[in-house]
Amino acid sequence: MGQGVHVQELPGIGKRFDIDLERPDQRVSVVVHAAGGRDVYVFTGHDSDPTAVLELTEEQARKVGAVLTGTFFDG
Amino acid sequence: MGQGVHVQELPGIGKRFDIDLERPDQRVSVVVHAAGGRDVYVFTGHDSDPTAVLELTEEQARKVGAVLTGTFFDG
Repeated sequence: MGQGVHVQELPGIGKRFDIDLERPDQRVSVVVHAAGGRDVYVFTGHDSDPTAVLELTEEQARKVGAVLTGTFFDG
Repeated sequence: MGQGVHVQELPGIGKRFDIDLERPDQRVSVVVHAAGGRDVYVFTGHDSDPTAVLELTEEQARKVGAVLTGTFFDG
């Protein structure tokens, strides 16, 4: 599963994950803060600035992640 | 974990998950197609049109989801 994901340590902040979506026109980067929060940068088109930025708490990120991985169930 | 996620059946297509991020200025909807693909709609600001749309394969969605849930490990 490690293919297509570039992980970089951000000293004092956390980790940055650059996820290759195998298309020139869409890309996602996630900064996972050591404190738990996740910043999600969505790039669409060919712009080098993010099209959308989400600031998620750890709990919110888990919720979105569960939907994406297909492991979300109604509580 | 079901709190804050509204699930709707889309007959013949799959399921739509509206994820409340507890902020008026950011929202995520995911359409999980029965065939596996996921369309991700990111809304930031107060626009009713999505700020960014991602078309992910099931594998790509799992990758992004694993990063978000904190279960991604280098392969």
